[in-house]
Amino acid sequence: MKPMTDRNTIAAVSTPAGTGGIAVLRLSGPRALEIAQSVWRGRSLMDAPANTVRVGEIVTSGGDTLDQAVATVFRTPHSFTGEDTVEFSIHGSPWLQREVLARLLEAGAEAAGPGEFSRRAVMNGRMDLAQAEGVADMIAVSSRAAHRLAATQMKGGFSRRLDALRGRLVELASLLELELDFSEEDVEFADRRRLTDLCSSAGTEVKRLADSFRRGRVLKEGVAAVIAGVPNAGKSTLLNRLLDDDKAIVSDIPGTTRDVIEDTAEIDGILYRFIDTAGLRDSTDTIERIGIERANARIASADILLWIFDPTSPMPLQLSAYRETLSLLPPDTPVIRVLNKADLTSGGSVSQADIISGVSVTQADIISGVSVTQADISSGMSVTQADEAIIPISAETGEGVELLLKALRDAVTEGRDLSADLIVTNARHYDALRHTASALDRVGSALAASLAADLIAQDLREAIHHLGLITGAITTDTILHTIFERFCIGK
Amino acid sequence: MKPMTDRNTIAAVSTPAGTGGIAVLRLSGPRALEIAQSVWRGRSLMDAPANTVRVGEIVTSGGDTLDQAVATVFRTPHSFTGEDTVEFSIHGSPWLQREVLARLLEAGAEAAGPGEFSRRAVMNGRMDLAQAEGVADMIAVSSRAAHRLAATQMKGGFSRRLDALRGRLVELASLLELELDFSEEDVEFADRRRLTDLCSSAGTEVKRLADSFRRGRVLKEGVAAVIAGVPNAGKSTLLNRLLDDDKAIVSDIPGTTRDVIEDTAEIDGILYRFIDTAGLRDSTDTIERIGIERANARIASADILLWIFDPTSPMPLQLSAYRETLSLLPPDTPVIRVLNKADLTSGGSVSQADIISGVSVTQADIISGVSVTQADISSGMSVTQADEAIIPISAETGEGVELLLKALRDAVTEGRDLSADLIVTNARHYDALRHTASALDRVGSALAASLAADLIAQDLREAIHHLGLITGAITTDTILHTIFERFCIGK
Repeated sequence: MKPMTDRNTIAAVSTPAGTGGIAVLRLSGPRALEIAQSVWRGRSLMDAPANTVRVGEIVTSGGDTLDQAVATVFRTPHSFTGEDTVEFSIHGSPWLQREVLARLLEAGAEAAGPGEFSRRAVMNGRMDLAQAEGVADMIAVSSRAAHRLAATQMKGGFSRRLDALRGRLVELASLLELELDFSEEDVEFADRRRLTDLCSSAGTEVKRLADSFRRGRVLKEGVAAVIAGVPNAGKSTLLNRLLDDDKAIVSDIPGTTRDVIEDTAEIDGILYRFIDTAGLRDSTDTIERIGIERANARIASADILLWIFDPTSPMPLQLSAYRETLSLLPPDTPVIRVLNKADLTSGGSVSQADIISGVSVTQADIISGVSVTQADISSGMSVTQADEAIIPISAETGEGVELLLKALRDAVTEGRDLSADLIVTNARHYDALRHTASALDRVGSALAASLAADLIAQDLREAIHHLGLITGAITTDTILHTIFERFCIGK
Repeated sequence: MKPMTDRNTIAAVSTPAGTGGIAVLRLSGPRALEIAQSVWRGRSLMDAPANTVRVGEIVTSGGDTLDQAVATVFRTPHSFTGEDTVEFSIHGSPWLQREVLARLLEAGAEAAGPGEFSRRAVMNGRMDLAQAEGVADMIAVSSRAAHRLAATQMKGGFSRRLDALRGRLVELASLLELELDFSEEDVEFADRRRLTDLCSSAGTEVKRLADSFRRGRVLKEGVAAVIAGVPNAGKSTLLNRLLDDDKAIVSDIPGTTRDVIEDTAEIDGILYRFIDTAGLRDSTDTIERIGIERANARIASADILLWIFDPTSPMPLQLSAYRETLSLLPPDTPVIRVLNKADLTSGGSVSQADIISGVSVTQADIISGVSVTQADISSGMSVTQADEAIIPISAETGEGVELLLKALRDAVTEGRDLSADLIVTNARHYDALRHTASALDRVGSALAASLAADLIAQDLREAIHHLGLITGAITTDTILHTIFERFCIGK
């Protein structure tokens, strides 16, 4: 994309809303220095070298001091936006932030829209679209895992991979286009064998990326983990245990009803939103029914279910509640089942060996005496192999919790190493990747059916187009608008 | 105060809490550059010239990227604190802010306490105590009037005046001390006449400053204006009219009960908190009684009462409600009375002349036909002369509102020009000024009674001491602690 030199100069408060020691206002565009200078009292900003700061005052048009400020001068193209940029660091009063912004607008700047600085950075070639989206993700990160994903995307790792892939496809496409130019001579510049191989390997990679989206989404947004079981199964004790063990930051977010409570915690780098829907299963009360419907809605959008069996409680009731919950889950939702109070069932202590082996021994052994077989528990449920196990734990003593944590992490990461893989976290990218994959599939079929080059080329162009949408190699105003309107103002 | 070179290096997030495009972390102290460098990947910060910025990355101890960042390097003594300072501008995710702060602490910084940067600025002679308090005030400003007061104090205008005053007293004190040295020779170095004059003029100035505190406090914190009258007197219409006319920013703050509603608005540079206690006077209901008690508590801490008479409503009831409200007000609270629906009473239109003259004509004329005399309205109330008037307005048409706005402003500013005067806004300063004034009074009495120089000198020293407490010429750890603990962290 070409630099735009006829743009206006925009201004916004870039720091979080509210009161603080410092607030930063950003001014970017061809007139940034001139406008900054016109509200400035102190050593001239106009002749300040790039990347230097000056201390002075921001003044009203009448010459009264608005605030003492530090001005940082960046010069095109070496700024975030690629344009001349001045950042004013002022005192962090919301009133003052409004007044200084109003002063900048009065002096000729225009109020920046959401994400307008980032949009300019993209327009001026300072970053591509996927990188800009990485910036937005970085601002929203709330766990180490989400941070890693955003950092990779922001630094361009994701874009580089897609560009390489796209480069290969473009090369193939241009060979096909060449054939079209010579279509009357019936030549094949593009080796069909090589084309088939490349399409297949590109298709595999694109599908692999698209498949990572489910993981990526929960890693980015946090894992909605419904923690459930009959009352007194030990849910709160377990939750506290999980949080204590990891010295996680805990916050109590009252849900939409008093009946659905969320606890947010970062455990082992992954953000979990534990949703407690306790004690709701058996109610017949009308008002509680509303609560149950809300709880059910949460279960229906769960990313994972953590079910706690209580060996000291009648098992048939637990199984019926468990089955009801399972029936509400989205398809293929990982389910982790634990048998709490393992210390009680084996006489007060469970050896580590018992716990480890507990995953592979028949569940009947573990929950012996509570009249239920493994068949009962997993009957009729489409659960993955790992879910066949019940993890015996004692939330009270902490035994078995290590194993539970590992099971949680494995369920979320699907057993993969987060640092090794590129993971898609963005719904827009997922969509584009799915379109790319389906176009590549059509190319493959066309090749297999030895169809004419122009038909193959058309699908290949479509695949290239959709890949290009991700990094912004291909873009439209609509796409740009949709992306940047979700950014915060000032970024 | 001497610079402290053996201090630790402190770090904090200085921007408001929450999510934004940018957050700024500040690192200050002898090891600021070294610690910043140890978390930095990019061009060296150690050899960065003062007042320059470098672009790079903040990395974990393992070398992973935490964030892309801009680092601004300030070098002692040319920084806010007077120490070496590095400011990191990072992406404004709360999670990231915590992580980067944790990284700086891991690298050897200590978490800054509230106001610790400002405290260091004072300790290192970069500003005096009153100026630092001006910084805190500036961060809290919420109106143009409050802003003007904070700016004056922050820039040192207040301190300069007090220092000049203190200088004169110190000169006198030293002459008196000289007499003490020569006490056996019975000489008078300090001209008693000049001493008396100076004490008297200094006393007058100190008292004038102290007297400005009531004004200063409400200008700084906002004017708690109880807007009252019987239901349907037109309070809401008037409020909307006041706000519309000034294009003020309005917010609805639900009070502690549904029955007390606050509307905050900046009108003509002054922040008003309009407190509506409508419809509460006549209730006998138990639950409403609680609401009434709360409303009464608000009236009892009002800065001003704006009472609306309704000519279309029975006047005896209105007068009784009015009297009850007056009896709850703090002593000497300004009262502004308006007669709304002036357009109705004079047949649908009130000429501007009517309104102006309305202030001085007998009230009986204006509210003729509603069976009440001026004597009734102001009977038994200790109101100031200005309050004798009733301002006829029409909230509906806006007639008379100009006059009401002027009356409001005059009541708050006590008719003075805000830009000309030095105004005390700080309770600590007020306290010190009162002590100074009382010590100066004693000096005056001692002089009048021709008491011995040592007695006079003692009171004079006390006056000097209390004046010195304001700017920090004299200070204690307790005072410093009390002041800075109220600052936000990061400032």
